[in-house]
Amino acid sequence: MKAFQIAELVGGELHGDGELEIADIAAFSAAGPGLLVFTEKADARVSARGSSVLAPFGFPTPEDGCVIVVAAPKAAFCIAAGSILSPQMNPAGIHPTAVIAEDAVIGENVSIGAFVSIGNKSEILDGVEIHDGAFVGNKVRIGQGCVLHPNVSIYDNSIIGDNVVLHAGSVIGADGFGFVKHNDSYLKFPQVGRVVIGSDVEIGANTCIDRGALGETLIGDGTKIDNLVQIAHNVEIGRNVVIAAQTGISGSTVIEDDCVIGGQVGMGDHARVLSGAVIGSQAGVLPGKIVRPGVWWGTPVQPLDEYKRQNALVKGLQRLKNEVKDLRRLIRGSREGE
Amino acid sequence: MKAFQIAELVGGELHGDGELEIADIAAFSAAGPGLLVFTEKADARVSARGSSVLAPFGFPTPEDGCVIVVAAPKAAFCIAAGSILSPQMNPAGIHPTAVIAEDAVIGENVSIGAFVSIGNKSEILDGVEIHDGAFVGNKVRIGQGCVLHPNVSIYDNSIIGDNVVLHAGSVIGADGFGFVKHNDSYLKFPQVGRVVIGSDVEIGANTCIDRGALGETLIGDGTKIDNLVQIAHNVEIGRNVVIAAQTGISGSTVIEDDCVIGGQVGMGDHARVLSGAVIGSQAGVLPGKIVRPGVWWGTPVQPLDEYKRQNALVKGLQRLKNEVKDLRRLIRGSREGE
Amino acid sequence: MKAFQIAELVGGELHGDGELEIADIAAFSAAGPGLLVFTEKADARVSARGSSVLAPFGFPTPEDGCVIVVAAPKAAFCIAAGSILSPQMNPAGIHPTAVIAEDAVIGENVSIGAFVSIGNKSEILDGVEIHDGAFVGNKVRIGQGCVLHPNVSIYDNSIIGDNVVLHAGSVIGADGFGFVKHNDSYLKFPQVGRVVIGSDVEIGANTCIDRGALGETLIGDGTKIDNLVQIAHNVEIGRNVVIAAQTGISGSTVIEDDCVIGGQVGMGDHARVLSGAVIGSQAGVLPGKIVRPGVWWGTPVQPLDEYKRQNALVKGLQRLKNEVKDLRRLIRGSREGE
Repeated sequence: MKAFQIAELVGGELHGDGELEIADIAAFSAAGPGLLVFTEKADARVSARGSSVLAPFGFPTPEDGCVIVVAAPKAAFCIAAGSILSPQMNPAGIHPTAVIAEDAVIGENVSIGAFVSIGNKSEILDGVEIHDGAFVGNKVRIGQGCVLHPNVSIYDNSIIGDNVVLHAGSVIGADGFGFVKHNDSYLKFPQVGRVVIGSDVEIGANTCIDRGALGETLIGDGTKIDNLVQIAHNVEIGRNVVIAAQTGISGSTVIEDDCVIGGQVGMGDHARVLSGAVIGSQAGVLPGKIVRPGVWWGTPVQPLDEYKRQNALVKGLQRLKNEVKDLRRLIRGSREGE
Repeated sequence: MKAFQIAELVGGELHGDGELEIADIAAFSAAGPGLLVFTEKADARVSARGSSVLAPFGFPTPEDGCVIVVAAPKAAFCIAAGSILSPQMNPAGIHPTAVIAEDAVIGENVSIGAFVSIGNKSEILDGVEIHDGAFVGNKVRIGQGCVLHPNVSIYDNSIIGDNVVLHAGSVIGADGFGFVKHNDSYLKFPQVGRVVIGSDVEIGANTCIDRGALGETLIGDGTKIDNLVQIAHNVEIGRNVVIAAQTGISGSTVIEDDCVIGGQVGMGDHARVLSGAVIGSQAGVLPGKIVRPGVWWGTPVQPLDEYKRQNALVKGLQRLKNEVKDLRRLIRGSREGE
Repeated sequence: MKAFQIAELVGGELHGDGELEIADIAAFSAAGPGLLVFTEKADARVSARGSSVLAPFGFPTPEDGCVIVVAAPKAAFCIAAGSILSPQMNPAGIHPTAVIAEDAVIGENVSIGAFVSIGNKSEILDGVEIHDGAFVGNKVRIGQGCVLHPNVSIYDNSIIGDNVVLHAGSVIGADGFGFVKHNDSYLKFPQVGRVVIGSDVEIGANTCIDRGALGETLIGDGTKIDNLVQIAHNVEIGRNVVIAAQTGISGSTVIEDDCVIGGQVGMGDHARVLSGAVIGSQAGVLPGKIVRPGVWWGTPVQPLDEYKRQNALVKGLQRLKNEVKDLRRLIRGSREGE
């Protein structure tokens, strides 16, 4: 592709040589001929070194490359990258070692790798790519264009929308953790529901999403979940929610649309995070808590402002203690003075 | 089954039409004809909608269904569900792709899925179900009625009791994390012990239980461990312990019988949690700490009451600070008044 | 082997019968004939029970065994164990079920297990052992003597040094978690970099190391990483770093050589931990933070001394509050006395 084509694609204003070839992408610090890079700083004073630069308004036209001025260079870079990089899809076809149930339905242009299992009555829609060693149980539905990376495990009855990416080792639909104390031991509460994942979802490596106990565990369209996250039974996550690594969400908790949850956050059961809330890393949400829109921090979560004020008060404890000591001295002094 | 049969099974008192058919289970909110549901609230004022309801004493007899009165409706529901739901076991037999060592011993009614490996001298007892892609090393013993879900990995020499469920991606018997600084780098401490798991244990998806360094890592009968939990080398966990997701337990720590450990708890090494202790989510237990029976919270853990008192004191810091300011004003005033 | 040979190997001073046979290793508490054990306490008053004991200076010569006096008994034990225990390597050879790309290069004395996949243009160097169900993508390089345990997944382009151990279920090279909000949904930032791991590294079970977004995620020589750890895209970890279980390190953070990071630590992005720093378990490092050498604790991290002082102040809050109350009484008294 050429620079002017990228400029057209992202709706940017080109300055410099629009005929520059673009063959690959790179970080700004690794700029060079044939590369598309981006910066969000108008005053980045680095040579373009022959590259095409997506940059905000005010970025100077480089002598040794070109600039494509856009309002949101990083987003434009994402869009442009999709056209520059050839998709890495495995070739369509079913590896001879794959074990596919006779009554499974496999769509067009599907790629199924070595040692893949596909269970009874499962449907794999068009353009799906299933990498080696992935397991798909019975009555599972995998929507169009999904990618299942190696060693993914999908339990029976899971429903997965279109264009979902499941990274290696993720587990969808394992039994929820529900036990009832009875006499001196535990009975298992039935875990017979399922997982329903929307479209355009990404699930990180070794992340676990448990099936509903009786109903469903739901992940909404456009939601992105990082590695090693735990989503318990009957959790409902809305659309376009972002959840960073190692966060754990207990049973029946609801996270509404457009929330952002940091890493290593823990949420008790039956909590509700209202649309647009942002929860900082390592925060803890108590069971049943309602988290309103805004930025939240700490364990138990409090509004970020309060958290900071509280932290400052704790940091000032030594001074407060000294002050009290001082007051005592003053009082003693004034009493002795009497 | 019919409602009166369930009443007999759980020792409950039936009110209403005992001839109602029960074909499936559901949540109370999804009650309907042919379903068994439960509630723990005697005053749940919702129509039974043709279902059979397990409920506590005082629940009114529904006009459109029946009620089975029991002391513990949730436990009764668990027991009844076991009779209503047909078990989902895979058919017995060994998939032709499975690779089984010649000297492995396979019991009766065993189901072994595709791409399963079973190592030398391993014993798979009667009624075991091993799903696709699971790996069983050498000299492993899998007790009667165990279920290994897909892509489980069991290292050599692990011993697993009866009726244990291992969810997908769990790893039993990996090397413990023991390194000794020597000059400027690390020597690996030998990790040559094993894991011994009792009976009726459930291990969550992607949970890791490391082998003992020299001795054993022990998990007692009836213990339930959630997803993404880390159990280090030489940990000893007693009977009927419950451990929620993403908790980590460091080397040689002991958790006695009947403890309940929340999610994302971290425990240092060589700690001991005495029988019956309850530790809240995200708590931290210092190395060597002895945690007595009772409810514990926070990092480092303290009794819940203390934790709450402490928290209230911190919350009251602004008021305390104001008070000190006020006192200073009073003192100044009284001195100026002299 | 005989005791005197071990003494020579570790450069220790032998007291007692140097002709004692040593066939295995054990914990000191399980000492017995034919075993090598160690203790770090010179005054351990336990019978050697026929074993050979690695011990520090001052340990008495046992009547029923021998002692090998060394400066660092635990390190000596690690070294000796390597000679006593026969390595557990699988026999060299390629299992007939393995699927290996025609243009992959396989070295000498390589062991490749059942259901292993090796992708195009990958190189597996001499003495590598790949266990069942492991997946190696395209253009991957696995250095000499590496061990890949079952169900490991290695994405395309990953580079792994010599003598690296990857435990079961670990995932190397999954896409980093980078999304850019655009209008109301998220665009995926290109994740096209790679993972480069040095030599003598150990990676725990179900640990995830994401590929660089545009550049590389780096793990230095001699670094040891425990189970269930998350290493995000473009993280750089130096040499001989130790990271305990369930810790998470966000994108582009740098950990310099010789750091020790506890379990369940969370680090924000673009932080830098300077060489030699020690960070306690469950600590939290804010994005962009620079952590200097020394011991750090808490969230956000502070020097351990400060953390303790702060904690003591919080613990003393009730007393401080009482003191303020007391002062108020005194002031009232003195005013009323006027």
